[in-house]
Amino acid sequence: MNTEGHDNLPSHRPPTQRDLDPHLRRYAQRTAAMTASEIRALFAVASRPEVVSLAGGMPYLPALPLDSLADELAQMITADGMVALQYGSAQGTAELRGQICEVMALEGIRAHADDVTVTVGSQMALDMVTRIFCDPGDVVLAEAPSYVGALTTFASYQAQVVQVAMDDDGLVPAELDTALRALRARGRTPKFLYTIPNFHNPAGITLAVQRRAEVLQLCAEHRVLVIEDNPYGLLGFDGQIYPAMRATDPDNVVYLGSFSKTFAPGLRVGWALAPHAVREKLVLAAESATLCPPAFTQFVVSRYLAQHDWKGQVKIYREVYRERRDAMLAALDHYLPPGCTWTRPTGGFYVWLTVPEGLDTKAMLPRAVTQRVAYVPGTAFYADGLGSRQMRLSFCYPTSERIVEGVHRLAAVLEGELDLQRTFGSVRPRTVFGPQSPSPDTA
Amino acid sequence: MNTEGHDNLPSHRPPTQRDLDPHLRRYAQRTAAMTASEIRALFAVASRPEVVSLAGGMPYLPALPLDSLADELAQMITADGMVALQYGSAQGTAELRGQICEVMALEGIRAHADDVTVTVGSQMALDMVTRIFCDPGDVVLAEAPSYVGALTTFASYQAQVVQVAMDDDGLVPAELDTALRALRARGRTPKFLYTIPNFHNPAGITLAVQRRAEVLQLCAEHRVLVIEDNPYGLLGFDGQIYPAMRATDPDNVVYLGSFSKTFAPGLRVGWALAPHAVREKLVLAAESATLCPPAFTQFVVSRYLAQHDWKGQVKIYREVYRERRDAMLAALDHYLPPGCTWTRPTGGFYVWLTVPEGLDTKAMLPRAVTQRVAYVPGTAFYADGLGSRQMRLSFCYPTSERIVEGVHRLAAVLEGELDLQRTFGSVRPRTVFGPQSPSPDTA
Repeated sequence: MNTEGHDNLPSHRPPTQRDLDPHLRRYAQRTAAMTASEIRALFAVASRPEVVSLAGGMPYLPALPLDSLADELAQMITADGMVALQYGSAQGTAELRGQICEVMALEGIRAHADDVTVTVGSQMALDMVTRIFCDPGDVVLAEAPSYVGALTTFASYQAQVVQVAMDDDGLVPAELDTALRALRARGRTPKFLYTIPNFHNPAGITLAVQRRAEVLQLCAEHRVLVIEDNPYGLLGFDGQIYPAMRATDPDNVVYLGSFSKTFAPGLRVGWALAPHAVREKLVLAAESATLCPPAFTQFVVSRYLAQHDWKGQVKIYREVYRERRDAMLAALDHYLPPGCTWTRPTGGFYVWLTVPEGLDTKAMLPRAVTQRVAYVPGTAFYADGLGSRQMRLSFCYPTSERIVEGVHRLAAVLEGELDLQRTFGSVRPRTVFGPQSPSPDTA
Repeated sequence: MNTEGHDNLPSHRPPTQRDLDPHLRRYAQRTAAMTASEIRALFAVASRPEVVSLAGGMPYLPALPLDSLADELAQMITADGMVALQYGSAQGTAELRGQICEVMALEGIRAHADDVTVTVGSQMALDMVTRIFCDPGDVVLAEAPSYVGALTTFASYQAQVVQVAMDDDGLVPAELDTALRALRARGRTPKFLYTIPNFHNPAGITLAVQRRAEVLQLCAEHRVLVIEDNPYGLLGFDGQIYPAMRATDPDNVVYLGSFSKTFAPGLRVGWALAPHAVREKLVLAAESATLCPPAFTQFVVSRYLAQHDWKGQVKIYREVYRERRDAMLAALDHYLPPGCTWTRPTGGFYVWLTVPEGLDTKAMLPRAVTQRVAYVPGTAFYADGLGSRQMRLSFCYPTSERIVEGVHRLAAVLEGELDLQRTFGSVRPRTVFGPQSPSPDTA
């Protein structure tokens, strides 16, 4: 049924594959932004064991002590099963919200558990923030490049993303000022600035401390809310913990946190810390989205935080990732052809690589996968098609040996591309990719 | 900051409490529909142990075997922890999706695991379906009354709900036909019909089998998609399992299911079974909402289904709820004053009670709570303010003794109201309540 008479489609258009969907005319406008990337299929190939994937953002979980976790969890079910298996509060359990405040205190945040909303990963917090603030056509600011999952969420709410340049010290305040003034001149006030200050995904850059005050000041002057997304803040390789922007501006910052990188992502436990009035809206939005986050996974996290040396575990993670970062940077130094540049992250999961002029990282990806190495093309991290000379390399999941091998293979791919370029000149079209990307953090 | 100059607010308006929110001018339009109900505070009182709450929709979990669950879970972590704690697919694990197909086969559904999307409770499935189909102002059809969580979700997407009358055999096809024709005359095609065919929440009614075909036929004729929400389908007290509407019309029905009532809601594991093209959109929407559902809780459910006599457990649930239904119906027969009528559910959690003309269940609720009994006023289940003479009574959670005591107290409250009415006449305003309701299913 419903295969005939697509009333809203121009009749002169030749049939396309999409016409095979009998529900096509029913979708909401926002659904037009929800399209699967053609490189998803490639990532399926990239998950084969012979491919070194430098694409995924998966934490290195073998560092976790599974046996003691199994014991703790069995105890939790015996002791708290009736509550952990039951419906809970839409805001999250009081115990976990209190523990989250203790975690955030490490970054200088003073907060009350009543202002924390537990979410299904910080991705849901991002979705809820966008839901309560963004009408279609609203402008949001983000770094250039920015987290692909944020760009996808903004697109699903039909928000317009304006990306602001970064340098080695993170978001550039002068560029932010220019963007804000240009928008003001057009009568537009962005709904918020979305920023990842620490060990940026994908750029691997940290916002300099003195710049944090400047960014906050600019946003305050222009009355723009700040969304501070900080999943990697405790993963600084020298153990340094940067002060959260939320610590100095509690009234104009919504802080997003996550246990995905400090504990385990399969639990999907994240949170938003928001000014009280915003928190009320967040809870109402979250309630209509999922009724409540899983009580069960919250009890798991609470027990883990209470009974486990979780800070010691974070230190183990940091040391694993530091060793892998070192391996990746050394391999890049050793193998990559001249003309490549990359960031030197001091924490987190990612290196951001720029390849020589004329190469196109998205066009090159099928050849890279053929040569058994995968990465995420830079275009995934821009809403506007930029990033064709960039790629994100993750050092979080493969071993150091595999990372070195992967970079070695990548260098060979780049050499091959440069050879082609020297022979035939640059023939790569400038492709537009944007946020209809794969899911690099789960790939 | 940002407390001055609310540019978008009319300057002549006197200040209200909402002006205390400095972020007020920033919210999206949809956020206006997200307001906390004034009866939330009452439900906080109603959760005190001395109050018999007939309000909540919480399953009776003490029927679960916690000790064996603890053992099974510890084994799961040891065996599968590395995968269960890691990021997973946005669609859900292949194992669980296959098991879900086996569960649905009990209702006559033949489906492929590839068309199942696992969600964070079926509430998230409802949110995702609304996200991909509903633009602001779009019409959706629902039963009158309907599930409060669905009305809240539709409101959060600014959809307009048209509710269609039910009788003792469920949704009335002639009324549906009238509604569809009236909408067509206004040039409107509803995006979908949202229906709960089995053991309806809140009405406690089941859609007669012969009517299922009529409803499907009408929706097909008018090209209206059907969203079949079936959380209670396996909880029929005589063990009868009704054929799913999806079983006879796979191309025009999106089926929503849940383990919240057959296993445990604290895991938040639900699903949507959708035609293939719709499933693709659902997965993309879900990915931007949460990246992926928790792998951990999916592994818990998979292990439970595989290693446990889960059908035996459902039978235990059914017997517990049947006994409580019997206790509630007997107490209503015995205690309630003349002029009250109620439904006689053959499964599920709820009785729908209509009180005599002139009484107002929402206005009466504070007095009921004072007399230590709570319910959900009927207005919560209508988008348009109807339902002031109705209430939902849940028999799922309190023991039979407590249910009898609760109905006894409720009868006294009703007698008191009727006394007042006889003395002073009806003085109750017809209050408008609508979907800005409490969270009765988690209260």
